[in-house]
Amino acid sequence: MAKTNPGRFFEDYSDGQVLHHAVPRTVTDGERALYHALYPARHALYSSDEFARNCGLPQSPIDDLAAFHVVFGKTVPDISLNAVANLGYAEGRWLKPVYPGDTLRAESEVIGVKENSNGKTGVVWVRTRGFNQRDEVVIEYVRWVMVRKSNLDAPAPEAVVPDLKKALDPQDLVVPSGLDFTTYDFAQSGEAHRWGDYEIGETIDHVDGVTVEEAEHMLATRLWQNTAKVHFDLTFRPDGRLIYGGHVISMARALSFNGLANAQMIVGLNGGAHANPCFAGDTIKAWSEVLDKAQTTVPGIGAIRLRLVATKGGEPFVLKNEDGRYQPNVLLDLDYWALMPV
Amino acid sequence: MAKTNPGRFFEDYSDGQVLHHAVPRTVTDGERALYHALYPARHALYSSDEFARNCGLPQSPIDDLAAFHVVFGKTVPDISLNAVANLGYAEGRWLKPVYPGDTLRAESEVIGVKENSNGKTGVVWVRTRGFNQRDEVVIEYVRWVMVRKSNLDAPAPEAVVPDLKKALDPQDLVVPSGLDFTTYDFAQSGEAHRWGDYEIGETIDHVDGVTVEEAEHMLATRLWQNTAKVHFDLTFRPDGRLIYGGHVISMARALSFNGLANAQMIVGLNGGAHANPCFAGDTIKAWSEVLDKAQTTVPGIGAIRLRLVATKGGEPFVLKNEDGRYQPNVLLDLDYWALMPV
Amino acid sequence: MAKTNPGRFFEDYSDGQVLHHAVPRTVTDGERALYHALYPARHALYSSDEFARNCGLPQSPIDDLAAFHVVFGKTVPDISLNAVANLGYAEGRWLKPVYPGDTLRAESEVIGVKENSNGKTGVVWVRTRGFNQRDEVVIEYVRWVMVRKSNLDAPAPEAVVPDLKKALDPQDLVVPSGLDFTTYDFAQSGEAHRWGDYEIGETIDHVDGVTVEEAEHMLATRLWQNTAKVHFDLTFRPDGRLIYGGHVISMARALSFNGLANAQMIVGLNGGAHANPCFAGDTIKAWSEVLDKAQTTVPGIGAIRLRLVATKGGEPFVLKNEDGRYQPNVLLDLDYWALMPV
Repeated sequence: MAKTNPGRFFEDYSDGQVLHHAVPRTVTDGERALYHALYPARHALYSSDEFARNCGLPQSPIDDLAAFHVVFGKTVPDISLNAVANLGYAEGRWLKPVYPGDTLRAESEVIGVKENSNGKTGVVWVRTRGFNQRDEVVIEYVRWVMVRKSNLDAPAPEAVVPDLKKALDPQDLVVPSGLDFTTYDFAQSGEAHRWGDYEIGETIDHVDGVTVEEAEHMLATRLWQNTAKVHFDLTFRPDGRLIYGGHVISMARALSFNGLANAQMIVGLNGGAHANPCFAGDTIKAWSEVLDKAQTTVPGIGAIRLRLVATKGGEPFVLKNEDGRYQPNVLLDLDYWALMPV
Repeated sequence: MAKTNPGRFFEDYSDGQVLHHAVPRTVTDGERALYHALYPARHALYSSDEFARNCGLPQSPIDDLAAFHVVFGKTVPDISLNAVANLGYAEGRWLKPVYPGDTLRAESEVIGVKENSNGKTGVVWVRTRGFNQRDEVVIEYVRWVMVRKSNLDAPAPEAVVPDLKKALDPQDLVVPSGLDFTTYDFAQSGEAHRWGDYEIGETIDHVDGVTVEEAEHMLATRLWQNTAKVHFDLTFRPDGRLIYGGHVISMARALSFNGLANAQMIVGLNGGAHANPCFAGDTIKAWSEVLDKAQTTVPGIGAIRLRLVATKGGEPFVLKNEDGRYQPNVLLDLDYWALMPV
Repeated sequence: MAKTNPGRFFEDYSDGQVLHHAVPRTVTDGERALYHALYPARHALYSSDEFARNCGLPQSPIDDLAAFHVVFGKTVPDISLNAVANLGYAEGRWLKPVYPGDTLRAESEVIGVKENSNGKTGVVWVRTRGFNQRDEVVIEYVRWVMVRKSNLDAPAPEAVVPDLKKALDPQDLVVPSGLDFTTYDFAQSGEAHRWGDYEIGETIDHVDGVTVEEAEHMLATRLWQNTAKVHFDLTFRPDGRLIYGGHVISMARALSFNGLANAQMIVGLNGGAHANPCFAGDTIKAWSEVLDKAQTTVPGIGAIRLRLVATKGGEPFVLKNEDGRYQPNVLLDLDYWALMPV
């Protein structure tokens, strides 16, 4: 009997199937420190236990994106080992902060399958949930991927395409229990701009850039136990080791501090596209656009919907070309909700 | 008086001598996180405190190989600063798990010396023990190295060659106190294969590969406070910085998850050879062979003896050429005992 | 309104001004482990909680230089974002050890301003203080930098040049409360040399070298939340990413273990010059000179004043050429006080 895991192929998925992902993971102060070594992260709520306490939390949580990466990493052996492309994200929500000492595990439910007309690949939609050691859902999101068929003779399943929200409604967003910006310290947070200071349609060039090295993205990707071969094995892909898309997300989010220092917590992921591949040597820059604003149910806490674009240089604020395709310098187009002091 | 340490030369060792190695080291959640960033480690007992508790331990231990590297690192200034070659390991045993917060120190006893016929070098055998802060032995192993003479006129000592076991008897292995696989969760561990599913002689290709970068192996080697110059100083060796052999061991062990996910704890080291040097840019792959199986004294816990081979590519399962020498692509040939659920 | 921080220019500083730096930072076991992965640090007081307890402290502090880097990093957005050069340090004192779990924040007072005769730049002197979560000063130091003017028509301020000590008097040094070397373990510390074994004028070649990689210095610089663009963005400077001067300080200090293993705690910074820029690929070596020795108020604890020189190779003990300029291979010339067992 073969002992190694070949991964699943398109014909192995069916609508309604539940996958229990392996290898739970305890995150600690070590992961927190590594996150700050790998990304220029400076949002104060994640940098200082004192700042977090002043905002009503027991201590600094693990970065929201680190929690996402750990949960995502769990799913790779079951979802994307034979994936051709990561097509999109939707309906992502952060439901509970993750603290040092918490142990995360993940489950995914298949919510859609559709074979492509070429008969060689298909699209699989999954809703993934990350749980802590108290079986509370800390994060959930929908992802869809294109997966190869192994047996080309396998019959096409009945197509099921889920109906996904283009963006989360503000009332779907969960403000962490206890979060309170009443005595928020704008001097300590790094910028004076409140939720009220941002206008829908406003764009921000985050100015700074980071040239990515091979060692860094591999350290990050291993830390989240993401095992996709293309990130580690230089013999696997002739054009270089592909950088895990989540590395680009975290780098861009950290760079966005410069202009969005008070967009403290990520609570919703409306969508995201890895527009072009990123390789070591690329210098990642970022810009943002304010897409929407909304009140939350908690006084003093506003929600801001942001488009976060990572590029490998070039002019900011240029996303697509005339025929609607992403510019070649665009790496990431992410649409998320964050919480800010009003 | 010279203030720096020139290291010991062959004539400085004598049978029965005891060396107290310097600079004790506290290992924490930080070292644990770094281990997971440096290697694609996924064995669940070391990844999740909850999984470890379900196996009867108070929390996840520090990886067995991390504990080994810390103890090994302590010995370098006294044993291998002037070593020409690391010749072998034997009779290695893990006696107590190491937990975050533990402080490790090391001692070595010289158990053999033999001058080579060239009169310029000799072989030194040491039995090294690592202790925690309660003076409990957590690990012990025999290592032998070839060391240069400084004074070529120093007389050859009487040759003492220790009688070492080719492999540990299963009854020499220590199952950690409290370890219990009764409710072992095969879904969470990542594979369904039990001890009973492996056959002596069976071989497993672990499939995945990792291309090694300079920064990574230096981070790892510094973390274990291993100070051997050849790992850090590019001006020291014309063919490149030699990667610490322990880095290759940890990388291969982590890769072996894919096929040996339930070989959870390493408890014995029967032998090991660093067959060829490893340099940055090499892509490390791994395969294993089941050498033996045995019951332990604890019901439900089996011991499996494995050969773990790291290569820099090439065909798996080919170890030596016709004249008995290691193939040029073989980096490591390790022989160890691990514990599995029966 | 522009949302991003352009940094301050020379005309934005005035004598007596107080700057409250943003983004407090909690340091943990994670930062401690990363420090040991980034530098070959082996001073026992920082490596072992048990050794630290035997010296009267509650556990190992965060490395003195790590505490310095965190505080320094806080100041970068307000002090050196538009700096042309980091000119010097003086009157640095470590007043309280920093332990895992402590949260650091920083303030700077402008204590001098002097426009240069070219009318395009000026020198700004600041006294920076780092505070813990109990508002205790843990570190203080003076730094002066050359900063660009943005508005060349801004009038030159009245020149204020502070009167700084060439070196701290021994009575200015603060021995941490409780520190006690009565039962200091010289076997565990790694060397037998006491304070009494060093002579003023003595020089020590620390022998070992480390070739620096891009990923390492960026990990370190990000960890201290130092955001200076020149360290991260390869497109910013045609000759390569400049390595943060503090990375060179930490590397040299760690290398100085070999010969100064018992110079345990840094308590004073008399001065320092980054003599030449350091880039990835340089192999850092170090040598020291004993500049002074003094008793402290605590029996058994001596103070030693050391010049620590980092080079990128070349002969040790050669600092400047005939016209008084630093040799091209010299990277760092640091003057500090450390505490040793008498």
